[in-house]
Amino acid sequence: MSSVYRKVKGGVTAPQKFLSHAVSAGVKNPDVDRLDMALIVSEVSCVAAGTFTINRVKAAPVKVSQTHLRDGDVCAILVNSGNANACTGVKGLEDARKCARVVGKLIGKKQSQVAVCSTGVIGLPMPMVRIEPMLSALTEGLATGEGTAVAKAMMTSDTCHKEISVSLKVGGETVKIGACAKGAGMINPHMATMLCFVTTDAKISKVALNSFVSDAVEVSFNRITIDGDMSTNDSVILLANGASGCKSIRRGTQDAKKFQEALNYVMQEMAKSLVRDGERVTKFVTVNVKGAKSYNDAKKVAEAVANSSLVKCSWNGNDPNWGRIIHAVGYSKAMVKEELIDIHIGGLAACLGGLEANVSMDLLRKKVAGDAFTIDINLNLCEGEYTIYSSDLSPEYVDFNRSEYAYWKQARRDGLTKQ
Amino acid sequence: MSSVYRKVKGGVTAPQKFLSHAVSAGVKNPDVDRLDMALIVSEVSCVAAGTFTINRVKAAPVKVSQTHLRDGDVCAILVNSGNANACTGVKGLEDARKCARVVGKLIGKKQSQVAVCSTGVIGLPMPMVRIEPMLSALTEGLATGEGTAVAKAMMTSDTCHKEISVSLKVGGETVKIGACAKGAGMINPHMATMLCFVTTDAKISKVALNSFVSDAVEVSFNRITIDGDMSTNDSVILLANGASGCKSIRRGTQDAKKFQEALNYVMQEMAKSLVRDGERVTKFVTVNVKGAKSYNDAKKVAEAVANSSLVKCSWNGNDPNWGRIIHAVGYSKAMVKEELIDIHIGGLAACLGGLEANVSMDLLRKKVAGDAFTIDINLNLCEGEYTIYSSDLSPEYVDFNRSEYAYWKQARRDGLTKQ
Repeated sequence: MSSVYRKVKGGVTAPQKFLSHAVSAGVKNPDVDRLDMALIVSEVSCVAAGTFTINRVKAAPVKVSQTHLRDGDVCAILVNSGNANACTGVKGLEDARKCARVVGKLIGKKQSQVAVCSTGVIGLPMPMVRIEPMLSALTEGLATGEGTAVAKAMMTSDTCHKEISVSLKVGGETVKIGACAKGAGMINPHMATMLCFVTTDAKISKVALNSFVSDAVEVSFNRITIDGDMSTNDSVILLANGASGCKSIRRGTQDAKKFQEALNYVMQEMAKSLVRDGERVTKFVTVNVKGAKSYNDAKKVAEAVANSSLVKCSWNGNDPNWGRIIHAVGYSKAMVKEELIDIHIGGLAACLGGLEANVSMDLLRKKVAGDAFTIDINLNLCEGEYTIYSSDLSPEYVDFNRSEYAYWKQARRDGLTKQ
Repeated sequence: MSSVYRKVKGGVTAPQKFLSHAVSAGVKNPDVDRLDMALIVSEVSCVAAGTFTINRVKAAPVKVSQTHLRDGDVCAILVNSGNANACTGVKGLEDARKCARVVGKLIGKKQSQVAVCSTGVIGLPMPMVRIEPMLSALTEGLATGEGTAVAKAMMTSDTCHKEISVSLKVGGETVKIGACAKGAGMINPHMATMLCFVTTDAKISKVALNSFVSDAVEVSFNRITIDGDMSTNDSVILLANGASGCKSIRRGTQDAKKFQEALNYVMQEMAKSLVRDGERVTKFVTVNVKGAKSYNDAKKVAEAVANSSLVKCSWNGNDPNWGRIIHAVGYSKAMVKEELIDIHIGGLAACLGGLEANVSMDLLRKKVAGDAFTIDINLNLCEGEYTIYSSDLSPEYVDFNRSEYAYWKQARRDGLTKQ
């Protein structure tokens, strides 16, 4: 934690003039009573920015929200869990647009001012018959201090809700940043996954906000991997309404630096919490690479190690297996010289100059047996650095994901299967 | 099978004038009596070609064999299992060269005429004290018809030995191609893995042989994936001694076409047998991609699908989960249009135009429940095609690879651990 910001209570409604509400619509299963739809609204006009999955198969709400963020003045985010509205064709787009239009009307805004996000099963049509009637309940219940309910309504196979809030000073005024997120697998069984919403009462221009968000995503959500798969629905959306009364935060200023630092922290904490709550994950592993020929080379090495099934299996088994790590370094396509590679596990040298270090195996094993540890890889070539947050791979992950689970059950319930 | 060649009995000693022998040296464990060192020698001078891992962390024998194949007239291959001689520094190189030198002397050849291959544990020095004394036994026992023993001596976590042989006519003469291979995981726990040796009594120039081998590897070993990891030791070596008396096979001729076809078949059969015998694999899955913008795009899509943990988990669970397949297609970085993507599973349409096809789920599930099936993906854009052979991912694979297994036990046995 830095001296620039401090953690405060709450999530997306911690910043001033943000309202939210969550309801149970039975999106996935009408017989189960759990929060599964939520709405975040800024009471005053605001600017918005977002980043989305680069998967070429994009869910309908991703396509719709991208257009709204580009063309409109988004001030509200509608989210549902239980159905991803992905691979649903023209009907899926119509459903997403209709939700935005209806909510917009209810809060006195245009369709293009409402972003829509969905997470859940891929390939099934949205149960609009259950969703539409709940939209007015959602808007009628809007209130401050309901942020936690939003975090809960987004969950799919997450085992806990995830939210955070910080405050910082901008030119004498107190500014807050709040966020909530959901994850689970990078992508679940037929689930389409990562969502994060951030609100702030700082005053920021759209151009500056875009830059703040993309920089923060680069050091947070782009740095995590659970199973190496990338979802059709990944979305990060930030709303900034200026309600704190602070002066506008301009790029390149000291205030911008402070705000970026606080925003990075908020997003990194959310990103790390997704890894910790990944499907059947037992360990949180930080992979630091330095000494690479370039930033891109460091990234290649970190990603190869963090995504290697064999490396992740060894972590699950408390095995300080540097041989697997160095082989993943070798196939990363980065420039490496075997005889220069150093690998430290939990701060202890496991491999120096490409050879086994003189280290106690028992001590190394103890490091990997912990529920969080760091792998430091130094290529000793140049100045390129990169860090990624990863997890182990457990037999339980495979077992969980091999079962025919959400899709067919849900389709059958809604009478959509063809026999 | 084609009319060009036919399968015959035997492996690497099926072609004329190839001798081999295998012995038990206790490389991994002196207390276990199993074949673990073998030698293949051509009685007459021959030309050799090879392809090797592109992992930048290369085992010592890979470096040595690459040099020998480039500079020398390789006519012998020495192989051991139980120790990969990888990440062993200068000492590893000296050990590999010494083995080649001693074997060369024993058979009246130069060091540079002997290729050396190792597979087994990474990071431990070669137990030369057990290996060296067996080199004369290896050369003394050289005989025809011992090919199967070579295939057995190469095995690590393979559950069966792998060999094949075919015969074909080249200008009236009968020519044979023989091969043996070992695999298991693409890379094992600390194991460094894929090896394939091919012999032929066809007469071929070095230039032509290089081209035949690289074309055959492209459609065989480069098309398989078990866990997406790439080993430090992968090696394919082909020896051609011309002992059949056939005329020299020149590139671009009808004979070359026939020989290439037979060689492709031999290597493809070996490659497929590695997938079938992959660690804890229960299914053999052929992934065909067509309609891509280019060959490279088709390859990207096939590799993304064949390497996706979630897709592989679903296959393990008999789940015809096209949603996971299309999401992997989407993140493959190939040019795709969601609304044009067709996916067939076992010949049945699962997804047409990016949407669920009108198909019986029970029928689809039956296809995936088989121990071999095909996934056909048509991007419907252009003419790019690619095929890859893959497997499922089982909880047992993770369980097998999470256990602290070969390395520490072996190191402890040889008194190499530091406590």
